[in-house]
Amino acid sequence: MADVDQAADAAAAAAAGFEVLGRAGRAGLLDEVADALEAERGALVDVADRETRLGGTRLSGELTRTCFQLRLFGDVLREGSYVEAVIDHAADTAMGPRPDLRRMLVPVGPVAVFGASNFPLAFSVPGGDTASALAAGCPVVVKAHPSHPATSRRAFEVMRAVLPDGVLGLVEGYEAGASLVKHPRIRAVGFTGSTSGGRALFDLAAARSEPIPFYGELGSLNPLIVTPGAAADRAEEIADGFVGSMSLGNGQFCTKPGLMFVPAGADRLRSALAAAVSKLAAAPMLNDAIRDAYRAEISRREHDARLELVAAGEQGGSELGSPALFSAAVADLDGELLEECFGPSALAVEYRDLDDLLSAVSRLGGQLTASVHASDGEDEVVARLHDEIRRVAGRLIFGGYPTGVAVAWAMHHGGPFPATTNSGHTSVGAAAVRRWLRPICYQNAPRAVLPDELRDGNPAGIPRRVDGVLE
Amino acid sequence: MADVDQAADAAAAAAAGFEVLGRAGRAGLLDEVADALEAERGALVDVADRETRLGGTRLSGELTRTCFQLRLFGDVLREGSYVEAVIDHAADTAMGPRPDLRRMLVPVGPVAVFGASNFPLAFSVPGGDTASALAAGCPVVVKAHPSHPATSRRAFEVMRAVLPDGVLGLVEGYEAGASLVKHPRIRAVGFTGSTSGGRALFDLAAARSEPIPFYGELGSLNPLIVTPGAAADRAEEIADGFVGSMSLGNGQFCTKPGLMFVPAGADRLRSALAAAVSKLAAAPMLNDAIRDAYRAEISRREHDARLELVAAGEQGGSELGSPALFSAAVADLDGELLEECFGPSALAVEYRDLDDLLSAVSRLGGQLTASVHASDGEDEVVARLHDEIRRVAGRLIFGGYPTGVAVAWAMHHGGPFPATTNSGHTSVGAAAVRRWLRPICYQNAPRAVLPDELRDGNPAGIPRRVDGVLE
Repeated sequence: MADVDQAADAAAAAAAGFEVLGRAGRAGLLDEVADALEAERGALVDVADRETRLGGTRLSGELTRTCFQLRLFGDVLREGSYVEAVIDHAADTAMGPRPDLRRMLVPVGPVAVFGASNFPLAFSVPGGDTASALAAGCPVVVKAHPSHPATSRRAFEVMRAVLPDGVLGLVEGYEAGASLVKHPRIRAVGFTGSTSGGRALFDLAAARSEPIPFYGELGSLNPLIVTPGAAADRAEEIADGFVGSMSLGNGQFCTKPGLMFVPAGADRLRSALAAAVSKLAAAPMLNDAIRDAYRAEISRREHDARLELVAAGEQGGSELGSPALFSAAVADLDGELLEECFGPSALAVEYRDLDDLLSAVSRLGGQLTASVHASDGEDEVVARLHDEIRRVAGRLIFGGYPTGVAVAWAMHHGGPFPATTNSGHTSVGAAAVRRWLRPICYQNAPRAVLPDELRDGNPAGIPRRVDGVLE
Repeated sequence: MADVDQAADAAAAAAAGFEVLGRAGRAGLLDEVADALEAERGALVDVADRETRLGGTRLSGELTRTCFQLRLFGDVLREGSYVEAVIDHAADTAMGPRPDLRRMLVPVGPVAVFGASNFPLAFSVPGGDTASALAAGCPVVVKAHPSHPATSRRAFEVMRAVLPDGVLGLVEGYEAGASLVKHPRIRAVGFTGSTSGGRALFDLAAARSEPIPFYGELGSLNPLIVTPGAAADRAEEIADGFVGSMSLGNGQFCTKPGLMFVPAGADRLRSALAAAVSKLAAAPMLNDAIRDAYRAEISRREHDARLELVAAGEQGGSELGSPALFSAAVADLDGELLEECFGPSALAVEYRDLDDLLSAVSRLGGQLTASVHASDGEDEVVARLHDEIRRVAGRLIFGGYPTGVAVAWAMHHGGPFPATTNSGHTSVGAAAVRRWLRPICYQNAPRAVLPDELRDGNPAGIPRRVDGVLE
């Protein structure tokens, strides 16, 4: 496709010059991108609100998040340890003489980023994938999400104006996305979206004559476990917290808790959940396809004999998504009940005892998060739950709720399949740059070709490992 | 398959207990494995020599290398920075209040390792993939290479005796290998071998209902570039070095230089190359299939009108592989001439000028290594060559030869496809453990569930990043 070829070729042509800017140069550019986005805050929020109806407060918060992330990556670049610089000077070893070896990470080349439907200003043209790839030194071609094309174009123009030519590209349309993943110039892909869409693109990336890494964030149930002690101590608080998290953004966050494990017979918790859900309003969905899929899934669940409706929220018009909480016995938890339902709905699964609970948790697929609510005196229960959830989830939350993914050095936003297609990496936080980097090693290189990061005397002033010792 | 099921299930059952041993426990085990292998050095070398005819010196060196690598991983574990521990204490940020977040890497679970034909004691049952996976805390099921089954079994028994039950498994046969890659208990795969075989297994790993990472080292030409200055200054030295590297292990190393760029008209270099190749003996190949493929490829090259035979080595019996060096013009370098020829043969490509050379290098596929031989006063040439080779190769060698992959903190043994299926990682050196790890993040976790590596006060005494600062 002509537009894909043009964007990918421009990205490839820009790659060397963008890398040569170096860490300080790129950090300065990321700050400029953040400044430029903030200078256009009003216009960007307006166009995004017209397209998505997410509201000014939420959208402005997204933009703040993106700018915070851009500036955090600036800090990551200036600090420099992310290049993992390692120097082993020539030495005689038990294996004989060893040459001078110097390793660091370098950009993989141009990458593709797929904008997500649910964060027009935080996981789209501007957002974590784009910011981390630019930080790494990789030109980015974004495939705009059809839910907010005008927002994508506007943000693209704002960012492009401060970036070197070709460093940021934009393509639109389903076929352009597939072409982009297959394009020989593209060296890696970042994606946030549905399990089916992500899997199809993952398959394209893997089937290339030169396969490329595909970092896809697909689906997650984000299970939240309530112990008997917590249900007894804090039923109302947990019910309010869970329902608030489940309905945030009308249930269209990747970390929405879609599965709750509750003790059988915890009537106070069940009543509190029902009360909280009943108060929820129906609200717009991100687009018509998502709304139709949600309504169809709710209708299926209403007719599923294994499920009971705990409570429904406001029944809005057919253009809205209405909240609903169902319950089921733990023995019935399988098949489509273990698939993500994107929207303001969740399933409360009633367990009889700890073995019942542990067994159900151990059968879950990969998750972005898992949360535990327990009480004092349940240390043994928490320890056993921890052993199970750490095997299935990327982020383990204690006494909290999964929505709200902090941009931080320590954040991990990822998890085993289908939460992501690559459990070794994160799409949020400082470590997100690692996806777009590959190591190279210099052997007996003359000083002139060595990057500053690998020269003796450490002119770049970055943390390094020299002859086995961190400095 | 019953044996694959049994080994994979045993590995899964052993995973939690193996991880609980912790860094110090596993480091001690790796030392014990090294001690046990060295205690059986004579027997292991004998059985490997009977099966492979590689000779006692070479095989003993392989065992020394493996033990060196096992002990280096012991150092990596004790030092502890490989877990990438990061702590962000709860704080108020520009994005609002942030919870306490603590990130570290944990083992991915049981992994599969494919033994290679060419290193029965260094990239097989004992070797870098197995050692790095055990270091990471992952049980390993090895698929033995059919070139040395008795060696594989003997080494397996030696290692198993000092490892916990189930932590090391062994399966044999082509179908067992495919079953292993598809087995739901297996979470990642390490492979060293041919491009076609590796690609087929990569495709199986990617096609799983839950895809898993496949770290395959496939094929590499390891181009070596001789500048006009170097050809004038050091023709004989470079010819001897190149031919020695090309014929080491009878050309059956992954880093064999199979492609040499030489200035057109560099007659002294050509004569020196011919003289060096003419002195080479024919030698056994690793197995009959490799020998037959090599002889067929040499026959094809002898009849390829684009190629000229610079020199051949000893013409041994039909059971041996005979050395041969061909030359071609740079304009003819494409198609099958860019495919790896496994055995003691290489292609000298004659370039007319620097543009000619740079253009040819830029068209190469991914490589494990690229080497440059230049002379004083050619800094500009070296700089331009560096810009090209760093894009295609994992290790950049100046004034040296690619065979000999040092086991070191700074080593990188990898590169863009088809050198490997994942250019972001290495199969040799300290960083090789990263392939078998995934991050998890604790949010507001009680002290009791936190690993030592993430507790306040740093009881594990490892390097960490706390509130953005490396400590």
